[in-house]
Amino acid sequence: MSTLSITGRTRLYGIIGDPIQQVRSPEVYTRKFAEIGLDAVLVPMHIDRNEIDAVLPTLLRLKNLDGLLVTTPFKANALAAADDVHSRCRRIGAVNALRRDANGRWQADMFDGEGFVRGLLSKGLVVSNKRALVLGCGGAGAAIAVSLADAGVTHIALCDLDDAKSQALAAQLNSSGEGCMFVASEPNARDVDIIVNASIVGMKAGDSMPAPFESFDSKQIVGDVVLRPPGEPTALIARAMECGCSVVTGIDMHSGQIDAIVEFFQAS
Amino acid sequence: MSTLSITGRTRLYGIIGDPIQQVRSPEVYTRKFAEIGLDAVLVPMHIDRNEIDAVLPTLLRLKNLDGLLVTTPFKANALAAADDVHSRCRRIGAVNALRRDANGRWQADMFDGEGFVRGLLSKGLVVSNKRALVLGCGGAGAAIAVSLADAGVTHIALCDLDDAKSQALAAQLNSSGEGCMFVASEPNARDVDIIVNASIVGMKAGDSMPAPFESFDSKQIVGDVVLRPPGEPTALIARAMECGCSVVTGIDMHSGQIDAIVEFFQAS
Repeated sequence: MSTLSITGRTRLYGIIGDPIQQVRSPEVYTRKFAEIGLDAVLVPMHIDRNEIDAVLPTLLRLKNLDGLLVTTPFKANALAAADDVHSRCRRIGAVNALRRDANGRWQADMFDGEGFVRGLLSKGLVVSNKRALVLGCGGAGAAIAVSLADAGVTHIALCDLDDAKSQALAAQLNSSGEGCMFVASEPNARDVDIIVNASIVGMKAGDSMPAPFESFDSKQIVGDVVLRPPGEPTALIARAMECGCSVVTGIDMHSGQIDAIVEFFQAS
Repeated sequence: MSTLSITGRTRLYGIIGDPIQQVRSPEVYTRKFAEIGLDAVLVPMHIDRNEIDAVLPTLLRLKNLDGLLVTTPFKANALAAADDVHSRCRRIGAVNALRRDANGRWQADMFDGEGFVRGLLSKGLVVSNKRALVLGCGGAGAAIAVSLADAGVTHIALCDLDDAKSQALAAQLNSSGEGCMFVASEPNARDVDIIVNASIVGMKAGDSMPAPFESFDSKQIVGDVVLRPPGEPTALIARAMECGCSVVTGIDMHSGQIDAIVEFFQAS
């Protein structure tokens, strides 16, 4: 907790999602703003998922709103609402941050994948020329696949409970990317170096593994986007630690994102 | 300043206006919420005056937004956007607070006048059977006139630079109220007991009097809605103090409002 005073001059940032109660960004970013001397707060903004396309464009007209974070299930809607988007967002089909630029235009970018890759690299792990398996082909999975490819991963297997989703994502990424092959796949952890859960399995207490993995090789790297309190890892991360693997948790991934997003907000 | 932490569960309140930088409510109400143990913040929400009727109804669809304060120039727009309004608001034609009730309906009320009358009464001043002069026939002037009448004032002279405005307000209040006569008038302070500035004159540093008053009788009560820092009274309040009058400042009026509005927010 930090000492904080909100005045009429305080700039506004928000996080939109449905549900919204579980998000940790308001605390984290508001503290970060105070640390860098920015008179701003980041508050939760709960939008009904049936109303997003009506509410979001109007929300962006608040004149003292300088930026938004975007969480489930609005990452594609936010892409559509932005004026200008980073090219990787069109490949991914999603964004997770918007900022208002000096001309009043809304710029969007996607940091889920960059956060994960920063998390890997900050642990001294090597990514280039590796093979990866990504579980879950929603916005987070697509973002991580693109960022892993941009960081040098050469082969990525994409899995989803919905086969059509993994096939569509593989086709989409193969058509727009270079130097990495994307394939729709069953969740098979053999012959891959990096396994990443980008699905929501693990978010609820008592959730089991996102796929029926028995064990891992200690040389494999296992990551999970699901954000759990320290000391309460997801079943996937717990199994990987038992097997002696290097792990990248939701906390690692989110830490990697924060600095990148604050830089993005400040650039406007 | 208070120790404050914003989480995903923190409830949201806002103040809408154009401009917004000058408002003090975010600091005051956020501190008040903390004092009463309510996990909520009140943040400035700057809406362009040309976009209010498009933006406000949509803003009210944010699911974790529980209440709004309304300042210039949106008090009539907010009346139109509310689902249910207190009867006095229709007489005044304006509201300055909205809350979401348990059924999701937006309730509106007007506390500008109640704040002023509470400010008077808290100083032990007597209102009943008095005659008053109100300068400025916008939302604040109308609210103060109605609350003074409800508190027992029997004759109220209404003044505005725009004669049509004072005449329209007098006609409107005479048709809806009982026990008090409202008349459109020149700003003549003779033969009145209470003089109130409800115009924006005094808001800017260096502003002069809202009307060419030379002096006051020490028995007269002089009020001013304009909010100035302690020790920097408006020209009107400074003159009244020189003449030995009892005064009710913008600070007194706003103090009177805060408890009433927090009760209103909490009732939902």
